[in-house]
Amino acid sequence: MTRFETRADAYVDRVESALAARLPAGDAAPASLHEAMRYAVLGGGKRIRPLLCYATGETLGIAADELDDPACAVELVHGFSLVHDNLPAMDDDDLRRGRPTVHKAFGTALAILAGDALQTLAFGILAGGTPPAARLGMLRTLAGATGSTGMTGGQVMDLEAEGRAIPIAELEELNRLKTGCLIRAAVLMACDARPGLAPDTRQALDTYATHTGLAFQIRDDLLDVEGDAALTGKAGGADAAHGKSTWPALLGLEAARERAESAYARAMQALQPLGDHAEPLRWMAERIVYRDR
Amino acid sequence: MTRFETRADAYVDRVESALAARLPAGDAAPASLHEAMRYAVLGGGKRIRPLLCYATGETLGIAADELDDPACAVELVHGFSLVHDNLPAMDDDDLRRGRPTVHKAFGTALAILAGDALQTLAFGILAGGTPPAARLGMLRTLAGATGSTGMTGGQVMDLEAEGRAIPIAELEELNRLKTGCLIRAAVLMACDARPGLAPDTRQALDTYATHTGLAFQIRDDLLDVEGDAALTGKAGGADAAHGKSTWPALLGLEAARERAESAYARAMQALQPLGDHAEPLRWMAERIVYRDR
Repeated sequence: MTRFETRADAYVDRVESALAARLPAGDAAPASLHEAMRYAVLGGGKRIRPLLCYATGETLGIAADELDDPACAVELVHGFSLVHDNLPAMDDDDLRRGRPTVHKAFGTALAILAGDALQTLAFGILAGGTPPAARLGMLRTLAGATGSTGMTGGQVMDLEAEGRAIPIAELEELNRLKTGCLIRAAVLMACDARPGLAPDTRQALDTYATHTGLAFQIRDDLLDVEGDAALTGKAGGADAAHGKSTWPALLGLEAARERAESAYARAMQALQPLGDHAEPLRWMAERIVYRDR
Repeated sequence: MTRFETRADAYVDRVESALAARLPAGDAAPASLHEAMRYAVLGGGKRIRPLLCYATGETLGIAADELDDPACAVELVHGFSLVHDNLPAMDDDDLRRGRPTVHKAFGTALAILAGDALQTLAFGILAGGTPPAARLGMLRTLAGATGSTGMTGGQVMDLEAEGRAIPIAELEELNRLKTGCLIRAAVLMACDARPGLAPDTRQALDTYATHTGLAFQIRDDLLDVEGDAALTGKAGGADAAHGKSTWPALLGLEAARERAESAYARAMQALQPLGDHAEPLRWMAERIVYRDR
């Protein structure tokens, strides 16, 4: 099989179409809400989480059409979290992916409700398919990753850490919750598509996803310091402006880069027992840790 | 069997305990979020939706312990919607059930995130149980009732109707979405516990729930005008202050009362084929349309 790299763009197009088909039409009532939901999710984004879901599927021999629903669901949860994180009462961001944030474009009330409805849609999509055991597994995985002991809990930790330098262990826990859980869910939902999957294989993929999630966040922090705003679509230095603890702030640039590399190495190591089948996931980890946007 | 009235208080206690057990402990990290979630949901509320779920269960001969999860899930979605509806960017309410609203007690950021996590918990609880077919049915029902073409869509219609007198048909559609869908879901999730339920029976219960939901909302509007704030726990006249279209505002008090009575009559009529088994649901509809809080 050719390298995953040659198929990544096609998967990005695939999930864009799948999302467009699953989101309510922009002219269906209530139109303002549906427009805001589509604006929040469509037309941009790296689609890292759906790509990880499809790459895990290739590794396990699962057809892409079995994974369109979980790939969309994890991206919808990601989209909902961005809309709410950007709100004035939270990070108060005006720009995301180089465009006005949802509350800037549609108002705060509609942004809150669009985020709410995107979360609901994610779970509704998973509940709308079969087979039941696989779908319930995906729903448990996604709910666990999204809720108070996952992404949303991480957002609370993030807000409460603002303006003070936190210990590295706390930053790692914050990252694990805020971004790591959802990246891990992208991989584990593909595993859930095969309820009979060998526990060792699932564990290897879990370990891979956990370290890849950490590498992703460190790279994100580094890009905020040294990235090109024209590529990232975000104002640089936003973390420092918000008084956020980040890997470069706590460790320095060089040590933060090394920490990302070591997480990458551990992710690669976890894939070893899976052999050549795991090439798509190797490519994804490399892309995540060396990306420039 | 004795009248449902003699068991209603025990069901309220039952769902309170079930919610307390399913919500994360208030001292588990992140503690502030978990405290806000518990504050939002526990210690008050009429528990109309869980009661409807259990009453439907009695009508269909389903044991209460099969319905604790959907009863909690529908109440958690209701709780999440109250937290977000009360936010400054939405209805900007200071009091709910006679206590400070969540954003007044915990701040706006935490209120947004607590609402988010309550929604996730609702879906997570349903996904955490068996049998799979019944649970997937409940998840589909709840997601459909909660999302952009259900409760959240109704909230958008509500915001967009502020400050103008809308036609009665639009008010009925707004009510159907904003409060009706979730009340209907409380009844239909109990039906989902029996995937083999006769379609006629499900249809009868659906019709009952639809009219009961309308009666509930009209009564709510009436209580806002003529209710006793000491009983309702809400400031009276809030609808008028928000420039909201309500049944008494559009029809007058007397005609609004008649509209509630006719919805009640149609709910009762729908139960006729179910005979004496439906007594719990008859009592619930009566309680809903004649309640004073």
